[in-house]
Amino acid sequence: MTRIIYLNGEWLAEPEAKVSVFDRGFLMADAIYEVTCVLDGKLVDYAGHAARLQRSAKELGLTLPLSEEALLAAHREIVARNQMDQGMIYLQLTRGVADRDFAYPPADTPPTLVMFTQSKNVLQNAAAERGIKVVLLPDLRWGRRDIKTVQLLYPSMAKMEAKARGADDAWLTEDGFVTEASAASSHIVSAEGVLITRDLSHALLPGITRASVLDLAAAQGISVEERPFTPAEALAAREAFITSATNFVVPVVEIDGQSIADGKPGPLTQELRRLYIDTRRAAAI
Amino acid sequence: MTRIIYLNGEWLAEPEAKVSVFDRGFLMADAIYEVTCVLDGKLVDYAGHAARLQRSAKELGLTLPLSEEALLAAHREIVARNQMDQGMIYLQLTRGVADRDFAYPPADTPPTLVMFTQSKNVLQNAAAERGIKVVLLPDLRWGRRDIKTVQLLYPSMAKMEAKARGADDAWLTEDGFVTEASAASSHIVSAEGVLITRDLSHALLPGITRASVLDLAAAQGISVEERPFTPAEALAAREAFITSATNFVVPVVEIDGQSIADGKPGPLTQELRRLYIDTRRAAAI
Repeated sequence: MTRIIYLNGEWLAEPEAKVSVFDRGFLMADAIYEVTCVLDGKLVDYAGHAARLQRSAKELGLTLPLSEEALLAAHREIVARNQMDQGMIYLQLTRGVADRDFAYPPADTPPTLVMFTQSKNVLQNAAAERGIKVVLLPDLRWGRRDIKTVQLLYPSMAKMEAKARGADDAWLTEDGFVTEASAASSHIVSAEGVLITRDLSHALLPGITRASVLDLAAAQGISVEERPFTPAEALAAREAFITSATNFVVPVVEIDGQSIADGKPGPLTQELRRLYIDTRRAAAI
Repeated sequence: MTRIIYLNGEWLAEPEAKVSVFDRGFLMADAIYEVTCVLDGKLVDYAGHAARLQRSAKELGLTLPLSEEALLAAHREIVARNQMDQGMIYLQLTRGVADRDFAYPPADTPPTLVMFTQSKNVLQNAAAERGIKVVLLPDLRWGRRDIKTVQLLYPSMAKMEAKARGADDAWLTEDGFVTEASAASSHIVSAEGVLITRDLSHALLPGITRASVLDLAAAQGISVEERPFTPAEALAAREAFITSATNFVVPVVEIDGQSIADGKPGPLTQELRRLYIDTRRAAAI
């Protein structure tokens, strides 16, 4: 690992990128994040990620220390400094360093802003070719999943539980309905060809890739229903898939050991993946 | 702030106590903590806190890098190095530093262990004299509150909301029952003189001070019922109080703007506070 990290206005070698143990991101998970995909050295769906970052910050009373322009410039500079062609940019904003207290520190406490890159071949994705297997697990996360906070212990535990059961990932359920995947949005295509995805609420993250894919589907004349769906509906679906910033669109071919349709990636899923990559790659900035 | 901090076997001046931005405690709240009270330079209820730390670690598959003896020695050394008479020792254990991934890093990844002190006059506590006001807020925390993780954003938000409403703290409710306070256990004394406190489950933290206080109450011949109680029961109670490691026992005199009994700290609450301090101070190690 020889990355150049952005930390509070400085560009640091990875071993130097450290924060105080009193950072509220470390002590209290008082922090939000975003992940933006990079293709051909350009930012994918950047406007959506920048807008969601502002929304998360507003919900928690956090303030970004960079202007919109400076934030975009920092994203571009981290790509350049790390000579990244494909992969992702991770950004985290915390409420800053303060003596530990449940009460927030004074509003003028400088926030902590960190950005780093992760290389990943997002175009050649074996999971997208063969599809993934998921297991259903109860959604035990907090009640404001619409805010993209770093409270990721449960998604992490769910990922490990899925692996322990021989699957790739988990779909989380609550009150009899699927909320989302451990770190992605969940979608199904009904026997009638309707794309069904959960409507936005505090129960799930407003996925940027989700929104783009729904737009693309609608533009293709696909019927889209935004409503909660049950595990039974998912098992009876013609297709199932996830969307996320760095997975784009990935087929789900098995849920709790049961094949979805013929157990192969569905045609609409594959078409939406192709469309997403083609259009967003062309529009990357 | 001129504290000496413990970090992974080293004793550091506060400005040098830093962790990598890749620490999973910072990126994913993949971390647990404990707070132990210090009185007369000695550790209060230490055995309980050490046992709960081990329990939290076991639940998440974390491993403490110190033996029981070394952990106790580190607690004593941090008291000595910081010449602390009264206050608390904060300890945090994370899954260590690794490239960001929802999947856990290899099991041999060194964990991060940090300890620091906070001075606090725990004996002279104005809140204990006059009692505190609480507001009721929905409990939006994750589903495994029995594990003492650093996912403390919601308790922190609840504390701020309570302050915004002119109160000192929040009591959290779920499915019509009180779970606990934002960072303490909740208790009431019924009109019949029964001490009622929620039974342990995934819904709340197994409070160390809670357990000690229940023991003390039972030894005094007080009837103790461990079961969920409603906000209505709390409002109709003869007394209400919280327990926590550094607050010991603190009366609650108002809930959602309504006085509890005559709005003054209750006699049993005050007696339990005195008993707790006397017995635990004498038994501190």
